[in-house]
Amino acid sequence: MTISSKNYSSWSLRGFLLCRLAGLDFAEARVSADDPSIRAELLLQSSSFLVPRLDHDGLRIWDTLAIGEYLHEIAPEAGLLPKDRAARAHCRSICGEMHSGFANLRSALPMNVKAHHPGFKVWTGALADIARIVAIWNECLRAYGGPYLFGAASTMADAMYAPVCSRFMTYDVPLDPLSAGYRDTMLAFPAMREWSAAARVEPDEMEELDVEF
Amino acid sequence: MTISSKNYSSWSLRGFLLCRLAGLDFAEARVSADDPSIRAELLLQSSSFLVPRLDHDGLRIWDTLAIGEYLHEIAPEAGLLPKDRAARAHCRSICGEMHSGFANLRSALPMNVKAHHPGFKVWTGALADIARIVAIWNECLRAYGGPYLFGAASTMADAMYAPVCSRFMTYDVPLDPLSAGYRDTMLAFPAMREWSAAARVEPDEMEELDVEF
Repeated sequence: MTISSKNYSSWSLRGFLLCRLAGLDFAEARVSADDPSIRAELLLQSSSFLVPRLDHDGLRIWDTLAIGEYLHEIAPEAGLLPKDRAARAHCRSICGEMHSGFANLRSALPMNVKAHHPGFKVWTGALADIARIVAIWNECLRAYGGPYLFGAASTMADAMYAPVCSRFMTYDVPLDPLSAGYRDTMLAFPAMREWSAAARVEPDEMEELDVEF
Repeated sequence: MTISSKNYSSWSLRGFLLCRLAGLDFAEARVSADDPSIRAELLLQSSSFLVPRLDHDGLRIWDTLAIGEYLHEIAPEAGLLPKDRAARAHCRSICGEMHSGFANLRSALPMNVKAHHPGFKVWTGALADIARIVAIWNECLRAYGGPYLFGAASTMADAMYAPVCSRFMTYDVPLDPLSAGYRDTMLAFPAMREWSAAARVEPDEMEELDVEF
């Protein structure tokens, strides 16, 4: 599993969580921030097909959703997708929405695991994205009973929305009780705690990039 | 199948092509450009979860890739995904890359089926996206033998990249012979010709939005 920064790369986190959810025994490889494509990824200028990337069984799979579908094929018992067809279609719909959308959220609240900004003022343009995400979460938690988006077991959707939970904590985004409960569930998720602990001790790649804020 | 503009909405085109490839008997519904989310979609400000949307068998599926996966589940014989596992993972990787990336291409060369701009000067920022797409196409056409990206039969990947073929024609983007051949194959694809013919005669929704260029 090839990743970039644990503190800043939300796509890397998603790929990592998918592998953990699938129960895959995997090693991590790191792409340097010196690579122009990774630099662009960390600066939120564009996505990079370099991360996350899974090399498995002679295959090379890039793109987060493709990795999720592949892991579901080789480890169906892990339940990355719900067993029920309607729930599965719903799960893929909200995974896809995260995958292609929420550009304002990304730029206004970039993932920054180790930072915490109490009372952060969210740019108006990102509020519609936040409202939509909260609506998605509430609909799922009510329909399937929680604590995960599709019920008692975690799925691909939780991996897709996990970086949002981290952002909501970093930027102190006010949430209704149901959404706040889900955020806390995901922040306490073992693979998420493992990732966050690693993010806190890694060298800061944004400082290496000499980025001024 | 809910869509917006046939001339401007590349996501609507992808959803339409997926339904045609799956052999689905479907009716089209149109969302008005008066809807703020559709207006934002047509102005390339954000994606909209309203289109494309498939209502089928009591289920509502939004997001293009989720629709593709659903159609593959209910009509596996249509071959929306390649039968070979490695090719399938490759197909999902490039579909995902189209789904989440190429932001510069989108903004520099928005889909406009009925327009034609010979000698169009492409903004430098979009050239890397074009080069990456051409690399993806060439790799597929060489590996699987064409004329479609994954060989003799069309797949989800062709639906995902079809709007790019339209853009390359509209903006007169120079291509190597292999890529140009693929572009022409897709522009001659029956469902693509059907869509383009309809785009040419529909009322212009950008004019209705009173957009100035």
